[in-house]
Amino acid sequence: MDFSSFLTSLGTSFLIFIVLMVLFAWLSTRQGNAVVYYPNRIVKGMEPWEGGSRTRNPFAWIKEALSSSEQDVINMSGIDTAVYFVFLSTGFCPYLFVSFFSFLHTLLGILVLSGIVLLPVLLPIAATDDGVKKNEHTSNTTSNGTFSDLDKLSMANIEVKSPRLWAFLVATYWVSVVTYFLTFKAYKHVSALRATALMSNEVKPEQFAVLVRDLPNATSGQTRKQQVDTYFKSIYPETFYRSMVVTNNKEVDKIWGELEGFKKKLARAEAIYALPQRNGQGTRPTNRTGFLGLCGKKVDSIEYYNEKIKELTQKLEAEQKVTLREKQQGSALVFFTSRVTAALAAQSLHAQMVDNWTVTEAPEPRQLIWSNLTIKFYDRIIRQYVVYIVVFLTIVFYMIPIAFISAVTTLKNLRKLLPFLKPIVDIAALKTVLEAYLPQLALIIFLALLPKFLLFLSKTEGIPSGSHVIRAASGKYFYFIVFNVFIGVTIGGTLFASIKTIEEKPNSVFDMLAKSLPGNATFFLTFVALKFFVGYGLELSRIVPLIIYHLKRKYLCKNEAELREAWFPGDINYVTRVPSDMLVVTIVLCYSVIAPVIIPFGVLYFALGWLVLRNQALKVYVPAYESYGRIWPHMQTRIISALFLYQVTMLGYFGVMRFYYTPILVPLPILSLVFVFVCRKKFYGAFCHTVLEVASQELKETPHMEQIFKSFIPPSLISEKQEDEHFEDALSQVSRSESSV
Amino acid sequence: MDFSSFLTSLGTSFLIFIVLMVLFAWLSTRQGNAVVYYPNRIVKGMEPWEGGSRTRNPFAWIKEALSSSEQDVINMSGIDTAVYFVFLSTGFCPYLFVSFFSFLHTLLGILVLSGIVLLPVLLPIAATDDGVKKNEHTSNTTSNGTFSDLDKLSMANIEVKSPRLWAFLVATYWVSVVTYFLTFKAYKHVSALRATALMSNEVKPEQFAVLVRDLPNATSGQTRKQQVDTYFKSIYPETFYRSMVVTNNKEVDKIWGELEGFKKKLARAEAIYALPQRNGQGTRPTNRTGFLGLCGKKVDSIEYYNEKIKELTQKLEAEQKVTLREKQQGSALVFFTSRVTAALAAQSLHAQMVDNWTVTEAPEPRQLIWSNLTIKFYDRIIRQYVVYIVVFLTIVFYMIPIAFISAVTTLKNLRKLLPFLKPIVDIAALKTVLEAYLPQLALIIFLALLPKFLLFLSKTEGIPSGSHVIRAASGKYFYFIVFNVFIGVTIGGTLFASIKTIEEKPNSVFDMLAKSLPGNATFFLTFVALKFFVGYGLELSRIVPLIIYHLKRKYLCKNEAELREAWFPGDINYVTRVPSDMLVVTIVLCYSVIAPVIIPFGVLYFALGWLVLRNQALKVYVPAYESYGRIWPHMQTRIISALFLYQVTMLGYFGVMRFYYTPILVPLPILSLVFVFVCRKKFYGAFCHTVLEVASQELKETPHMEQIFKSFIPPSLISEKQEDEHFEDALSQVSRSESSV
Repeated sequence: MDFSSFLTSLGTSFLIFIVLMVLFAWLSTRQGNAVVYYPNRIVKGMEPWEGGSRTRNPFAWIKEALSSSEQDVINMSGIDTAVYFVFLSTGFCPYLFVSFFSFLHTLLGILVLSGIVLLPVLLPIAATDDGVKKNEHTSNTTSNGTFSDLDKLSMANIEVKSPRLWAFLVATYWVSVVTYFLTFKAYKHVSALRATALMSNEVKPEQFAVLVRDLPNATSGQTRKQQVDTYFKSIYPETFYRSMVVTNNKEVDKIWGELEGFKKKLARAEAIYALPQRNGQGTRPTNRTGFLGLCGKKVDSIEYYNEKIKELTQKLEAEQKVTLREKQQGSALVFFTSRVTAALAAQSLHAQMVDNWTVTEAPEPRQLIWSNLTIKFYDRIIRQYVVYIVVFLTIVFYMIPIAFISAVTTLKNLRKLLPFLKPIVDIAALKTVLEAYLPQLALIIFLALLPKFLLFLSKTEGIPSGSHVIRAASGKYFYFIVFNVFIGVTIGGTLFASIKTIEEKPNSVFDMLAKSLPGNATFFLTFVALKFFVGYGLELSRIVPLIIYHLKRKYLCKNEAELREAWFPGDINYVTRVPSDMLVVTIVLCYSVIAPVIIPFGVLYFALGWLVLRNQALKVYVPAYESYGRIWPHMQTRIISALFLYQVTMLGYFGVMRFYYTPILVPLPILSLVFVFVCRKKFYGAFCHTVLEVASQELKETPHMEQIFKSFIPPSLISEKQEDEHFEDALSQVSRSESSV
Repeated sequence: MDFSSFLTSLGTSFLIFIVLMVLFAWLSTRQGNAVVYYPNRIVKGMEPWEGGSRTRNPFAWIKEALSSSEQDVINMSGIDTAVYFVFLSTGFCPYLFVSFFSFLHTLLGILVLSGIVLLPVLLPIAATDDGVKKNEHTSNTTSNGTFSDLDKLSMANIEVKSPRLWAFLVATYWVSVVTYFLTFKAYKHVSALRATALMSNEVKPEQFAVLVRDLPNATSGQTRKQQVDTYFKSIYPETFYRSMVVTNNKEVDKIWGELEGFKKKLARAEAIYALPQRNGQGTRPTNRTGFLGLCGKKVDSIEYYNEKIKELTQKLEAEQKVTLREKQQGSALVFFTSRVTAALAAQSLHAQMVDNWTVTEAPEPRQLIWSNLTIKFYDRIIRQYVVYIVVFLTIVFYMIPIAFISAVTTLKNLRKLLPFLKPIVDIAALKTVLEAYLPQLALIIFLALLPKFLLFLSKTEGIPSGSHVIRAASGKYFYFIVFNVFIGVTIGGTLFASIKTIEEKPNSVFDMLAKSLPGNATFFLTFVALKFFVGYGLELSRIVPLIIYHLKRKYLCKNEAELREAWFPGDINYVTRVPSDMLVVTIVLCYSVIAPVIIPFGVLYFALGWLVLRNQALKVYVPAYESYGRIWPHMQTRIISALFLYQVTMLGYFGVMRFYYTPILVPLPILSLVFVFVCRKKFYGAFCHTVLEVASQELKETPHMEQIFKSFIPPSLISEKQEDEHFEDALSQVSRSESSV
């Protein structure tokens, strides 16, 4: 790629961004699209165009985003989103800082440039003498293409052993120190955000509950319920409120799911019936009772569904009773009347055998993964290790099955294996397309399914809360993406060619990384630019959800509930969003000194991301959970990991430049490790647990314990009849079970 | 060493043991020696010869020791001692188990022996064909000496690649499984012991207190006392009782020490004065006021001391006031009215910044190391790492300074450097002795001072409790002793000769260990035998303390207090005792399969140790602290470390024997790691914290909080006047400080 084609690609991306932005400005003001561009406001019961943003000014949203405070974000989207913005701004602040320095730096590049221009004039004889003056890697990168204009601004342009390298060495330190300083400040800020949110005087159900797992076998004649109640009453005689024994809800969930399905179908049938027809009267909709409504007897839908609902409701009630009485499992939720007691209990050992009565903080009711609650202590540990191994294998060897599938699914093979496809495959136009895309097809499908696969793996670990699963999957995705995209692209083919060298000297990986870095600078520059212009353009304009929504509205949705489902935006997808931001951090950090020209692109990426997502957070996405910034420690650790990679790479690169003072960089990676250790010691505890000085803040009102208790009952177990009928089951009151002892 | 000399040495040791035992039986029945042989009973206010043990039967103590139950040990000497016996019996039980197997084993050795005898008869031509049949290592060990009789019972006698090795392979597994099984059972038992002791219905002051360190800076106008009280009152409004702010006691301790010294001197002077003299009247003792009582004015002792005491008492009172008011530090002891709250508080995070308000369990008052309480969070971490590095260097390089000192302190050098020693050194008899012992002198002094040095290092880490310091020092000593005695002796000179091989292949250390093991079997056999016969003989007979006591009684002690000091026995010295037992465990485990003949010696060591120490625990040693078996997890981990060393060594040894099925042993070390991990997960938590189901047991009586509080006041701060005079100082009541807010 030469310089002009780089500019062309940059220009095109920018143009696309502008077009998408204009499109957004135009589309978002249309009344019918409000649910696509302002769903969060609508969900919160606010006016979509509050604050007069329904102007034709295409930059109004920018003003709004910039003028919104952190508190606005917290109010509209919760702490987690606010923390994500802290992450984004720590992402670009250092680059702003560094940008200033890199200004000098680029100046330096110009000086070097002019130096090179001047040198052949001043010392023509020395220059023509031999090739020592010309660096190996300069020739190296030029051989990669003729992208010399940008190369001249990079470190590859500096002579080996040149004293000018001192400036780059100082810059390496500067970037590290800035990163330490800013992430430390951000950690402090996030910690304060979390504390403020947790000490809020509003009643939050999860602050009054703990999750108890790994109950020992109950003594004979004692139900699980009695066992839990007796145990906790004896330890917390004053603050124990009530317990909820976890039940095996598989059966009841299934029935409930069916019931809900029929209820939806009934509502839909009724809506169709109510539709004004040409002849003025609605037609009663019909359906078939067989497989997928395709075969079987044709019946009147409304009657049929009503009957089914009645039948299932009875079945559900019976199953609810059975579940609550007989399917009690070895874990429970325990409720306390005081936040402090719940916080204390969640941090303390209850039983002499640590693998019994393990007590942890209860997640939010909506986050609770009921099926994971009953997994036992050692089972959880084993699952975790198995998942780690699977993830490791996936990251390292994911190319093998894909290469295999690609090899199998060639056109030739397809024709052989599936002969009925022959007539279709042989069409000339289709053949060309298939030949071009078939090899990548497996990879594309794999990459699309990867987040789901990682979510599935994380859930399999036995984690009890939804946000934790997302956190875990996001971490796994980060390792995948950094290992495969960054290191994979950079080292690329070189690795396999020289696999023997690595076997002999494992640390030569970093040398190789260092050597191949400058050549790939332009690739990543284009990558980052594309990512922010096109990616954020699409994000802002929401073209895809808009089209899907309008299609659904026109052809599928028949009532309000279905319509709402069609536009409901979901949350900011942290599983893939955070890792891909982390990838950009890694790339920009690693190139920051080698090719400082990447820094403005990094700044643009994070600034634009901040701006666009600010808009989306305030207006579009509805958070699915609130974990009070629990993801931050992982983000911070990964930023420092990226920094560590950068520092080690720079060590290698300075080595390649044969700079005598390279060892001066050795303290940097050690410093990073110490920094991570200190941050972990100082802050991490407060992210794992609710701290007591926070939990001891006074509440606005006495908590309504019955309501707190009820908020944890899974929907499939909520009985519509009076609760009094359950006697001594998984949900019953402690006083009753006591009286029966 | 040949077989007969081994028997001679064994016989001599046994004879010494018998003599010492008879001596013990004779001496211990004499009235005047009761304080040496029964101090623990005397301290506890019991009759020395309770239960009719004052018989001339020299084996009465054995009967008594055998008939004593674990509860007796707990009553007389506490949980820690009981746990030590669990350790000793797990030490010998497996060997009893294994002994049974090794009986078959030894039989096998005999079979092998007869095989070798038979083979040359049956296959004379094959035998004389070449040297392959004769193993390298058989010749190896014989070259080490002519100790062939015992060698024939060992694995070194088996031919390489022989199928007989299968038996040894199975034995290797058997020893491991027995060790797992027994240590797991023991862990469970100790855990129950600890739980029972902690849930006792008696009031223990340390269960009502927590130690709070790393207080943040107080806001202006607030004293430390107010800061602590406000903070804990807000979190525990109902159960908070009172706080004791830690003060800088350096000055007051010094004055108090001087005062106590003078009080002792006064008592002594008075005792001398009261002594009946020849002329019927006591002489008033005199002393000099100058340096060490050697120079200065001669004064009447009683008057002089009385005056000094009066003066110092006033000074102490003034200093106490100043200390309590103005020398408050950033840590405190906080008292709760409930055991559960104290246990909960000690396990929970209190502040958002984890390095502030760190709360841990309070140690027993007598264990508290006041000077360590004020060391800050990161300071403690840094100290710890520095100490680890120092210990590592000490373990690995301790020979260097000693070799240097030995080289310097030759007779020649001494004469040159200290010419005034010339006349003494030149005496022929002394010269011979000095020449023999001078080289070892540095080593002997070093080894004698090592435990003290390790205790000092552990205390420097900033550990707040005495038992923890002892535990830490004991761990360090273990690493020192295993590394230097066991590995040092075994590999010995071979190591330095082939240092290059190790540099190339680090895992060849284990090969080398494996190769040199059989040759050293006899050395360690003698070592273990000597250790138990002479060591335990001396332990039981208490010859050295007896002589010292009688000398002191005759020439130094003038009153009861001084006499008591002379016979007071101290506690079972865990710092050196546990590591040296661990050394025997390591030795016996590592040789158990290679030379099963060592097993009975191991059994004898632990059985005899159990017996002798049972006697000592019941009658002699007075425990200095009670940590409720907190040392056990470390003992268990170290037993498994020894097992791990054994397994890896066996892997190497089977490799040396060129046995094809050696890889069958590979799962063993992995199994050991998993076992340690599982034990840690299951049990360790309950040893770090007081578990809630234990703390929630009911008490016999309502705790007398004032008394609990007072038991923590350091002696130098106890005021003899009414307490009301202190106003708003480090010890004052919360109500007062509140009223002044």
